[in-house]
Amino acid sequence: MMSFHFEIEARDGKARTGSFATPHGKVETPVFMPVGTVATVKGVPQDVLEELGVEILLNNTYHLYLRPGVDMVRQLGGVQKFMSWDHPILTDSGGFQVFSLSDLRKVTEEGVMFRSHLDGSSHFFSPESAIAAQIGLGADIIMAFDECTEHPAEYARTRASMEMTLRWAARSKKYFEEHKPEVPWFSSRQEKTQSLFGIVQGGMFADLRRVSAQKTVELDFPGYAIGGLSVGEPRPMTYEMVDAAIRQLPDDRPRYLMGVGTPEEIVHYVAQGVDMMDCVLPTRAARHGLLFTSQGRITIKNARYAGDEGPLDPACNCKVCLRYSRAYLRHLYASNELLAQMLNTIHNLAFYLGTMRKARQSIRTGQFAEFVSGFQPPHVDPLSRPAAGS
Amino acid sequence: MMSFHFEIEARDGKARTGSFATPHGKVETPVFMPVGTVATVKGVPQDVLEELGVEILLNNTYHLYLRPGVDMVRQLGGVQKFMSWDHPILTDSGGFQVFSLSDLRKVTEEGVMFRSHLDGSSHFFSPESAIAAQIGLGADIIMAFDECTEHPAEYARTRASMEMTLRWAARSKKYFEEHKPEVPWFSSRQEKTQSLFGIVQGGMFADLRRVSAQKTVELDFPGYAIGGLSVGEPRPMTYEMVDAAIRQLPDDRPRYLMGVGTPEEIVHYVAQGVDMMDCVLPTRAARHGLLFTSQGRITIKNARYAGDEGPLDPACNCKVCLRYSRAYLRHLYASNELLAQMLNTIHNLAFYLGTMRKARQSIRTGQFAEFVSGFQPPHVDPLSRPAAGS
Repeated sequence: MMSFHFEIEARDGKARTGSFATPHGKVETPVFMPVGTVATVKGVPQDVLEELGVEILLNNTYHLYLRPGVDMVRQLGGVQKFMSWDHPILTDSGGFQVFSLSDLRKVTEEGVMFRSHLDGSSHFFSPESAIAAQIGLGADIIMAFDECTEHPAEYARTRASMEMTLRWAARSKKYFEEHKPEVPWFSSRQEKTQSLFGIVQGGMFADLRRVSAQKTVELDFPGYAIGGLSVGEPRPMTYEMVDAAIRQLPDDRPRYLMGVGTPEEIVHYVAQGVDMMDCVLPTRAARHGLLFTSQGRITIKNARYAGDEGPLDPACNCKVCLRYSRAYLRHLYASNELLAQMLNTIHNLAFYLGTMRKARQSIRTGQFAEFVSGFQPPHVDPLSRPAAGS
Repeated sequence: MMSFHFEIEARDGKARTGSFATPHGKVETPVFMPVGTVATVKGVPQDVLEELGVEILLNNTYHLYLRPGVDMVRQLGGVQKFMSWDHPILTDSGGFQVFSLSDLRKVTEEGVMFRSHLDGSSHFFSPESAIAAQIGLGADIIMAFDECTEHPAEYARTRASMEMTLRWAARSKKYFEEHKPEVPWFSSRQEKTQSLFGIVQGGMFADLRRVSAQKTVELDFPGYAIGGLSVGEPRPMTYEMVDAAIRQLPDDRPRYLMGVGTPEEIVHYVAQGVDMMDCVLPTRAARHGLLFTSQGRITIKNARYAGDEGPLDPACNCKVCLRYSRAYLRHLYASNELLAQMLNTIHNLAFYLGTMRKARQSIRTGQFAEFVSGFQPPHVDPLSRPAAGS
């Protein structure tokens, strides 16, 4: 059975728009995937995600592996059924969280020993066990287990790490090919299976990015991610690394840039030929009161909004902008109310998804360059603080 | 202009069903009013409240007075416009919160000096200033300023407190009659005004409850509340005090029992002839994972639900029960996710509102006694802890 099919419908410069099909439905690209860490996009119920037009979610393998556990999700039919989301889901490999959240990790050729950030318990992820976990969780797209090289890192260290990621990619693929019918919904979805994507690493060295991309492509995956970026490096360097990788990636497979970015950045990446992105920024920033609008960023707690009867973004037709005033949103945030986090998150997701919708449309009509140049530069609210890392 | 009209459509024993009209719409009784403390029902957006069939909300004067402040809400058109809820709202007088939340209060005949629980700042509520605040906030139904007598209290102390509440009721009414056109929506709602309800006090002494009710009725309000109950006394005593008050209240005015109760209790109060109730229990308990169902109470964090694919309440058709499993709700709660609080609250409100809907229907069809006897006794989850006070 064909479980994954990517089709490019239109191009404009390096940007492309199209779609791919998964066992749980079709996804239009370029696509932004909201992060649903532990099988929930924080503060947003699934029906609202559907209203927003979300087509695919990202779940974190590391978090679901720890809680409620892979066996439980498998027993409940896989993560789509578990969270009542009958649409595509992608899981990451767990590697990034192991490297960023857990304590006392020990990396060997075999894999990574780490301690849970929840209770300090010891766990081990190898390429094989990370793929086994992802098969058990049952997302439509799963990721090879990689080492997310720390930044900054020396050339030799980065090359060695990248080469180990290549060996881990081969082991990931071997395990996946041998076990892919074990996905919980195999029989109920016409024996379709998950799709395993490879991940390009190589730190901040363009030649290592090229080698990583070439060698990962030799392993032949249905899609390719670019990992280990947006980890503190200056943005022009990110753009250079993305470009170095993309030039080696086949045109007919989706390209997934992991963990990015601001609205301006995701438009830039689409222009570079990226098809898929995910980021906690719109959801995390929302919970901290940083809102993205067509007029720039807004820090909703500012006293200037206390009496502002206007909508958050006059150009937005999300349910938050259609119903509530800035004054009310400011009051909810200042009062530390749950509804602040919900409404702010709904709006920020609407802004990101709307940006991608407009990007796709403009590529189809050959007006992508105009869309990019018309896209508002970041008008940073003078009192705002960066929220991405908080 | 007639701003308030109460009509009884059917009776069954002492229970009655009917409706009242307010400047922002009609309300069917008996009615349960969800608590929207600071102009938001914690975790539930307004469109979901509408889907749930909420007809009237309660807002807390004390909280809104402190944040965002009466002048701000007035400037924004009143609390209905402020929170984008174009339906009836009731505000309490602030008295209960002054007595339960604030520090260093000092009660005199003139009023109450208190310190904000937020920042320790000093404030003063008199009958006049509490009504002024409620006129500025602009709810459809507002409450006379009362002293909520502490429990337990001696007879003499309770009588003196009750008598002061009577004098405060007269002052509240006088101020209201002189200032009622100052409500922010006066001109935009055909010069309709708010309705001021009186409050019966009298502690746990039936004769004081009778006197309080008689004297409050002499002041002539369009509706009467019974306050100062469900403050720690045994439930049979509550029922006795409610009965003592109701016997003195006119049949043709709505009776509002403040701050109650469990599902079983609210059904009991309807049987006693109560028309309106409010309580934080369904919403607060939900945030602590205590859920009300047709099969009894559920403490969702219990491990027994970890693999339970069934709905929270098989007899409930709320959007939570129709979409999510107990296993998922348990996972959200155990993971301390925002969505747990939202979904739990939506279900508990659906249960309370559904209970009232069934009560009204059964009174109309003369089957209220059957409804009461068929209403499930509290099957308390053995591992559950009381959540109402936490």
